[in-house]
Amino acid sequence: MIFTSMKNPHIREVLDLKERKERDRQGLFIIEGYRELFRAHLGKVQLKSLYICKEFFLKENEEMLIQEFATKGVVVYLCSPYVFEKISYRDRPDGLIGIALQMHKGIPELEQLLEKKKNHFLLIAEGIEKPGNLGTILRSSDAAGVDGVVICDAATDLFNPNVVRASVGTLFTQPIFETKTEEMLTFLQQKTISVVAATPHAKQEFTEADLTKSVAIVVGSEQYGLSETWMNKCNIQLRIPMLGVADSLNVATATTLLLYEVIRQRRSV
Amino acid sequence: MIFTSMKNPHIREVLDLKERKERDRQGLFIIEGYRELFRAHLGKVQLKSLYICKEFFLKENEEMLIQEFATKGVVVYLCSPYVFEKISYRDRPDGLIGIALQMHKGIPELEQLLEKKKNHFLLIAEGIEKPGNLGTILRSSDAAGVDGVVICDAATDLFNPNVVRASVGTLFTQPIFETKTEEMLTFLQQKTISVVAATPHAKQEFTEADLTKSVAIVVGSEQYGLSETWMNKCNIQLRIPMLGVADSLNVATATTLLLYEVIRQRRSV
Repeated sequence: MIFTSMKNPHIREVLDLKERKERDRQGLFIIEGYRELFRAHLGKVQLKSLYICKEFFLKENEEMLIQEFATKGVVVYLCSPYVFEKISYRDRPDGLIGIALQMHKGIPELEQLLEKKKNHFLLIAEGIEKPGNLGTILRSSDAAGVDGVVICDAATDLFNPNVVRASVGTLFTQPIFETKTEEMLTFLQQKTISVVAATPHAKQEFTEADLTKSVAIVVGSEQYGLSETWMNKCNIQLRIPMLGVADSLNVATATTLLLYEVIRQRRSV
Repeated sequence: MIFTSMKNPHIREVLDLKERKERDRQGLFIIEGYRELFRAHLGKVQLKSLYICKEFFLKENEEMLIQEFATKGVVVYLCSPYVFEKISYRDRPDGLIGIALQMHKGIPELEQLLEKKKNHFLLIAEGIEKPGNLGTILRSSDAAGVDGVVICDAATDLFNPNVVRASVGTLFTQPIFETKTEEMLTFLQQKTISVVAATPHAKQEFTEADLTKSVAIVVGSEQYGLSETWMNKCNIQLRIPMLGVADSLNVATATTLLLYEVIRQRRSV
């Protein structure tokens, strides 16, 4: 059977999950795209159902991926191109949309993870507002090989379709934790992990400070930057040179600069 | 007189410019926001008219900025909050929208600029598709103090409202040139400026190559990366370490890494 009507209750399910309220209520979210679903599979994300439209396939090995999900009990629904375009978030849909169960981890899971590691390298994102920025930050933290990402006092939900998309599915393959600022600060102090933040007022440039020890890079919201709570508890303050008229970089690009500076320093030690 | 109706022909003018076709045809575009208009003023961008709604002002010195424009002959229109919200692109409008004349520069202007400089530092963006990425790239190139930005074979127009916005107005304060790939390649060869590109296949990491001489960093489109034409003519190939599952960074974050590596190296020489 192929879904051809927008009134089909299973199609309504996908549409409902475009709203955060429904995602929160149901604990579900949407994963669109071959690459994203492939990485969700890699990251052992649990799918509930999969909506496919073969007309849009880009010949990536879709059939094998669908088979992988189907053998795990994921229900597969076929859709007409008309219906699929309507439920898709993309200008160029590639024929695959999944509904998945949200994953939530907190401080206990972070503690467990760090037990196995030395010289910690964490990224903390506080109050990021735009899903695209949060996703891009996750794409960069994956690339930089951080131990884990901690989302504090999130202003956008991690399961917004634009986070999934901008993260190119790296949301599923790296350890991500959600917590509150106060709780996280206590944890970092206990573990003697240095809090590192960029501020225009810092004396040191970001390439001058020593980032080879255990560090947690903290970045704040697009509009207001890092909160005072974090800034006050900061162990290392850094400055990114700003040689033009603007006084700050986009938050995702600034984050990436700091993450890759940690790599550069650790590799050249 | 305050505009209260969406049918007012001056209001229609703003709405029309949301379409690229109309921007191209009229050679005009929209600049929204205090910060953006302030930078447009700094950059001597010529405004045609200014739409204001005092109810939305954030008390930034709006009156002075309006006065500055008015003395230059810019027509100022007052709008009701209802109308202003409708013509605004923003979730939180700040009461200022300008219509400005497009600025276009090419190779002759670039040549002029470089005559006054040594050790050139250019950024070339080829075929960027998303206005947000192009704007973020401009925000970073301003911060990195490049001599100029060259847009080759643009896939989005420089005057898209989201370019203006993501660039936080730095589109107006730095020299930007538009040209075709072939023309630019010839120019770079004449000037013996090294073409630098990132590719996963490069042997050198981006922090290892010498970027202290005259360089043009070239970045390509989100979907396809840099074209073969550019890649083949490249003098220095670099690799950005990718330590996770994804095989590339967002184009704006990758660009920023390369730009700031040039700064780091030149400062430590």
